[in-house]
Amino acid sequence: MKQPITYELLHICKQTGARRGIIHTPHGDIQTPIFMPVGTQATVKSMTPEELKQEVKAQIILSNTYHLYLRPGHKLVEEAGGLHEFMRWDRPILTDCGGFQVFSLADLRTISEDGVEFKSHLDGSKHMFTPEKVMEIENSLGADIIMSFDECCPYPSTYEYTKDSMERTTRWAKRCIAAHKKQDKQGLFGIVQGGMYKDLREKSAKDLVALDFPGYAVGGLSVGEPKELMCEILEYTTQFLPGNKPRYLMGVGTPDYLLEAVIRGIDMCDCVLPTRIARNGTAMTWSGKVVVRNATYERDFGPLDPECDCYTCKNHTRAYIRHLVKANEILGIRLLSIHNLRFLTKLMERVREEIENDNLGTFIQEFYKRYGYTK
Amino acid sequence: MKQPITYELLHICKQTGARRGIIHTPHGDIQTPIFMPVGTQATVKSMTPEELKQEVKAQIILSNTYHLYLRPGHKLVEEAGGLHEFMRWDRPILTDCGGFQVFSLADLRTISEDGVEFKSHLDGSKHMFTPEKVMEIENSLGADIIMSFDECCPYPSTYEYTKDSMERTTRWAKRCIAAHKKQDKQGLFGIVQGGMYKDLREKSAKDLVALDFPGYAVGGLSVGEPKELMCEILEYTTQFLPGNKPRYLMGVGTPDYLLEAVIRGIDMCDCVLPTRIARNGTAMTWSGKVVVRNATYERDFGPLDPECDCYTCKNHTRAYIRHLVKANEILGIRLLSIHNLRFLTKLMERVREEIENDNLGTFIQEFYKRYGYTK
Repeated sequence: MKQPITYELLHICKQTGARRGIIHTPHGDIQTPIFMPVGTQATVKSMTPEELKQEVKAQIILSNTYHLYLRPGHKLVEEAGGLHEFMRWDRPILTDCGGFQVFSLADLRTISEDGVEFKSHLDGSKHMFTPEKVMEIENSLGADIIMSFDECCPYPSTYEYTKDSMERTTRWAKRCIAAHKKQDKQGLFGIVQGGMYKDLREKSAKDLVALDFPGYAVGGLSVGEPKELMCEILEYTTQFLPGNKPRYLMGVGTPDYLLEAVIRGIDMCDCVLPTRIARNGTAMTWSGKVVVRNATYERDFGPLDPECDCYTCKNHTRAYIRHLVKANEILGIRLLSIHNLRFLTKLMERVREEIENDNLGTFIQEFYKRYGYTK
Repeated sequence: MKQPITYELLHICKQTGARRGIIHTPHGDIQTPIFMPVGTQATVKSMTPEELKQEVKAQIILSNTYHLYLRPGHKLVEEAGGLHEFMRWDRPILTDCGGFQVFSLADLRTISEDGVEFKSHLDGSKHMFTPEKVMEIENSLGADIIMSFDECCPYPSTYEYTKDSMERTTRWAKRCIAAHKKQDKQGLFGIVQGGMYKDLREKSAKDLVALDFPGYAVGGLSVGEPKELMCEILEYTTQFLPGNKPRYLMGVGTPDYLLEAVIRGIDMCDCVLPTRIARNGTAMTWSGKVVVRNATYERDFGPLDPECDCYTCKNHTRAYIRHLVKANEILGIRLLSIHNLRFLTKLMERVREEIENDNLGTFIQEFYKRYGYTK
C-alpha cells in the first residue's frame, strides 16, 4: 500500500541543522518548515479559504476533532463530503486528535485505560473518547494528516504520573493504528510524550518509531515550562526521530519559538496565537509586536508593517485599524488576522530560503535584534 | 460654480413612473435607482472595500456623522485625507447628518432653536450639534453627498410638534447652506420632514425646493408607521420635488419597501438591515427570507440562494453557514453580509433593467409572489 504522507528531505542547513523538505500529501505538497494556521471550528477565524490562499499563502491548515465532533458532528461533515468539501479548502488539512482539548477540561473529564470520559463545554453532555472513537471521527473528517489519541500532561507533573501517562499514550497509539480505516488516504502521526523527563521522552520516541508512523509530533511542550527547558527537551527528543519522516511541534506559534523549533529539526508548527492576538488588537511585525489598539497609533497613517506584502499593509493605516479595533468592528479583526498569519507564513518562507543558503543562524540572530527574544 | 452633484434622467417606466437615471459625483457616476450599503463607523460591517466593489458591486456607501464625530473624530479623518482615504473607498460616499442618531438618544438630548445638546452614547460626555457644527464635520469628512441637519420626528407626533419641528428643520437647512464651505466639492441635500401630515410635507418640500438644493431626501418615514401610510405620504411628497434632482428615501432597506419607494419616484435608499440580519443568521433570497440558523438547514448542502451570483452562494452551503452562525464564527456573518448586500444591489440592477423595459410593475408583482409582501 502506498503511504499517503511521505517526506522528502531537500537540504540541511550547515549553520543550524534545520531541515528543508517537502511533505507530499493527497491534497498537494507542503514546503517545510511550515507554520500551519488553525481552523478550530472548520474556519480559520474570520478568514475565507480564498484569503488563506491568496493573502496568507497558507499551504495547510489545522482543524480540531473535539470541536467538530461536538459541533456540527463528524457524521454531518462526512455527509458534506468531508472537511475539505465542507469548508471548501482544497489544500492539505491536519486534524488534531482532541487530546489536548479533553485534557484541558480538567474537572469535566475522567481518564481510564479505555479512554477519556468528558463533559461537553457547550452543553455539559457526557461523551467518551477512546483511540477507536477518535479514529472514527478523524476518518469521517478526512484530513490528510490525522493525529493519534494522546494524553498531554500538564506542567509540572511528577515522574510517576508522566511515565504512566506516556506509556498509556503509546498503548493508545497502537490501538489507533489498528482502528485507522483509511490508511491509504490519511497519514496517522504518533505523538511523543514524556513531559520534561529525558528518559521518558527517549522511551516514548523509540516505542513510537518502532510502530513506523509516517510522521511524528512532539506533544506536551510549550505548556507553561520555561523556554530553555522546552528547547532542551525538544532538542533531546528530536534525535530519536527518523530523518525520513516529518516532525511536528504542537501548539507553538510565537516567532521566536518557531525559529528555536526549526533549528532543532522541526518541520511543522501550529498555533492559534496570530488570530487570537488579532482579536486583541495586536500585530506581529518585522520590528516587533505592535499593539495597534494603543493611543500611540491614533494618528499613525503608515502601514502596520512597512515590510509586509499583505492586503492589510498594502491598503490600510494603523490609524484606521486602531479605529476599527476601538469601535469593535469585525474588519479590524480581519485586517489584523490577515497580517499576523501572513507574517508567520512569510517568516517561514524566509526560513526556508535561509536554510537553503546555509545562513539560518545568522538570519535568526538579526531577526532577534529587531523583533526581540522572549525568555 | 459647477455643481458637484447632478442628476441625469434617462427614462421613466411607463408601467410605474419609476425613474431610471444617473447621479454624477466627484467620485464617479451612480446608476439609479440604487441601494446604498451603510458603513456607520467608516466600515460596512465585516466587509473590505474590495469585497464591496467586487462581490457586492456597491456604487456608493453611506457613513455617519454622529458616529465618526465621536470616534475617531472628524479632525482625525480630515488629517487622514478625508473619509475616502481613511477607509480606502474611492467611489462615492454619502454622510448622514447625525440628526436621526442624536434624536434617537431620547433622554440624553435637548433641542433648542440653536441645535441639539446631547450626551455621547459611548462615554456620556456632553456635545452640541448645530447646523454649523454638522457642516464643519461633514466638510471634514469630505463625502460627495452630505445631508443638512434635520429633526426626525418620532411616530406618532402631534400636528403642532411636527409643524414646529419641520419649520425649524427648514431654518436649519438655510443655516446649513450658509455654513457649507465646500460647495464645489460636496453636494448638500435638503431633508423633507412633516411627519404624517400632508400639508406639512407639502410646505416642507416647497420651502426646501425654493432653496435650490442639488438633491432632496425624504426623512421621517419608516419610523414605525403602517406601511400603507408610509406609501401614501411618500407618494404625496415626491410630487413636490423637482424632476431634475435626485431623491433619497432615508433608512429603507427591505426589498418590498425599496420597490414601493422606487415606483413612487425614489432614486436612492439605504439601510443597515442586510448586515444587521446577517449577524442574526438571516438571509434574503429570491424565494424569501431564509433563517439559516434554523435546524431545517442543518444538512442542507445547497447554496443559500441558487439564483445568486455572490461569493457566498458560489462557494458555500447552507449547512456550513449554519454551522458558522451556531458556532459564533465571524466567517458566518461575513458570508451572510456579502450575500444580503449583493441580493439588494442585484435586485436594484434588475429594477433598473425593468424600468428601461417599461416592465417594472409586472416584475414587482412576480417578485412579491415569491418573496412575500409584508404589511
